[in-house]
Amino acid sequence: MKTLNINLGDRSYPIYIGHNLLNDKEIFQRHAKAKTIAIVTNDIVAPLYLNILTQTLGKDKKIIPIILPDGESYKNLDTLNLIYDELLKNKAGRDVLLIALGGGVVGDICGFAAASFMRGVDFIQIPTTLLSQVDSSVGGKTGINHSLGKNMIGAFYQPKCVVADINLLNTLPQRELSAGLAEVIKYGLIRDLEFFNWLETYMKKLTNKDSASLIEAVERSCTNKAEVVEADELESDKNIRATLNLGHTFGHAIENEMGYGNWLHGEAVAIGMIMAAFMSKELGWLRTPEYLRIIQLIELAGLPITPPDISEKKFLDLMMSDKKTKGNQINLVLQTAIGEAMLTNEYDPEILSKTLTHNFS
Amino acid sequence: MKTLNINLGDRSYPIYIGHNLLNDKEIFQRHAKAKTIAIVTNDIVAPLYLNILTQTLGKDKKIIPIILPDGESYKNLDTLNLIYDELLKNKAGRDVLLIALGGGVVGDICGFAAASFMRGVDFIQIPTTLLSQVDSSVGGKTGINHSLGKNMIGAFYQPKCVVADINLLNTLPQRELSAGLAEVIKYGLIRDLEFFNWLETYMKKLTNKDSASLIEAVERSCTNKAEVVEADELESDKNIRATLNLGHTFGHAIENEMGYGNWLHGEAVAIGMIMAAFMSKELGWLRTPEYLRIIQLIELAGLPITPPDISEKKFLDLMMSDKKTKGNQINLVLQTAIGEAMLTNEYDPEILSKTLTHNFS
Repeated sequence: MKTLNINLGDRSYPIYIGHNLLNDKEIFQRHAKAKTIAIVTNDIVAPLYLNILTQTLGKDKKIIPIILPDGESYKNLDTLNLIYDELLKNKAGRDVLLIALGGGVVGDICGFAAASFMRGVDFIQIPTTLLSQVDSSVGGKTGINHSLGKNMIGAFYQPKCVVADINLLNTLPQRELSAGLAEVIKYGLIRDLEFFNWLETYMKKLTNKDSASLIEAVERSCTNKAEVVEADELESDKNIRATLNLGHTFGHAIENEMGYGNWLHGEAVAIGMIMAAFMSKELGWLRTPEYLRIIQLIELAGLPITPPDISEKKFLDLMMSDKKTKGNQINLVLQTAIGEAMLTNEYDPEILSKTLTHNFS
Repeated sequence: MKTLNINLGDRSYPIYIGHNLLNDKEIFQRHAKAKTIAIVTNDIVAPLYLNILTQTLGKDKKIIPIILPDGESYKNLDTLNLIYDELLKNKAGRDVLLIALGGGVVGDICGFAAASFMRGVDFIQIPTTLLSQVDSSVGGKTGINHSLGKNMIGAFYQPKCVVADINLLNTLPQRELSAGLAEVIKYGLIRDLEFFNWLETYMKKLTNKDSASLIEAVERSCTNKAEVVEADELESDKNIRATLNLGHTFGHAIENEMGYGNWLHGEAVAIGMIMAAFMSKELGWLRTPEYLRIIQLIELAGLPITPPDISEKKFLDLMMSDKKTKGNQINLVLQTAIGEAMLTNEYDPEILSKTLTHNFS
């Protein structure tokens, strides 16, 4: 087992990465001391892992299972309210511990429930997808969607620990594994050329779910994200943490237009990263061979490399309404090399137009 | 104008207390720099003060007025969602400023909207009732009610500044002024004997809305609250901040049973303080003359001194479900003297029973 410490002052916490951690009584004895524990999960994950976790927590706990319908479309105020209802019906107090057992949707909504229930209770994250292991387990972003935009309601709120059990990925569909790999590739692209090189070598092993490779990929991804997050916990300086959004402004527009869940988040981000790379190349900031390496690695990860059919005007409208827009400028994360990215609104708008209308297929 | 600084590290903020502050352009130029400002208010306050505030903010601002229905019964998830809707429809970004113009309900819900919109935006409080000037303007408690309990959903979130304009109290109904005085008296009871003595002398002037007396009462109340809050911003030690809840566990049960709004919060707290004083007297912790002074001052403030008819069993059930319950013990704030209070669950349960069944009339 590897332990990675996220250093955020009195909100610091460890991430445990390894095999069979869901059965690791020691971890939970250390971090799950509460007498009453609500396990927030979904109807896909619950049949697989809820009993195991309940057993690991031990017989002396009062367990409140809260099983949500699966899917991004349920990441909303109504589902959040279901969690409050269950907690209150079961007379949970401020000493309740919430455990998020699921992917990003469960983690985000459970984290915001923890942030807002009785003005804040403890929570632990057990991410069950690769995406959530490498993305939402670091950063403290919690929240829900609104009909007018993704993640519009939420809070920065840190868990007490994250348990990233690689064995949980055995039941993960291949398509979702690939979606997680999009975010893994992102860390290489924005700040870690060496990791990008490593990924080019190990991508085949990763898509084959080789455990040792997955543990290394998760650890290196979380380490990269932690270094960024530690420098700007609350995203107060738009430049520091912003590069983590490489591909996301394009990607959110795609998810929003195509319907959450039809395109997986990682798939939309993969296309977004390709569009950002294309735009960077057209601006003369990124060399063509690097652009081609990016596309190749994304394709090797089993991800789509062609954007869906969205008109330029629609794309622009959607991007304008994304929360990363400040004032009326579209800020974009673009690449100056593999391993280097920056947030900027200083680009020729014609090139953005060219990117949105380019035929990638 | 008096300025009181609340010292909470990088979340510190000033409280301005004085006359005609709603017209004070300098204050708002200093703290309301955002280009887009949403004013969250209610349908009672809006006709009185919305235009004045809009004018003070200046013509170069984009103002989004969000007018909520008045009353505690609207302090819920649906109303909160109304605020999100308006912000998003008006394309507000992370640089929006929210201003709460109203009493405690508006302040709490607007504060929580600010805490949770795009994971946190700036907000300013302009409390328009005495209660909100002396209570919710210090402490950072924001939130909404749930059908199963009061203030069950929320966050600790500090404003950028608080503007307590005493002139706004001119339009406040006498009954609400009295309700505010309940919290003013509370500060004397829990930690400031000298202030309690002062209140015995000046209560008549306060109920007559004498400005100088009101400014002094607001300032001394906020100073007292600030000293407690600064010692424990997040209420992590149940003993430090807990005394602020004198009368509140009894009071919340009353509000909950009688229907929010039928009994004003301050009225319920007034009865709660009398019940706590009675219980303290019966336990032998408070002398009878002090108990009688407490009742007398509360009555002088124009507040009720007789609890509504609630059975002992019902009262206990309601108190058990209050969030200040940890585990299965009912923690209560009780008095050891005027100016001294403590949180305890070490009392003879017979005396609690006697308190809940005592005929106060």
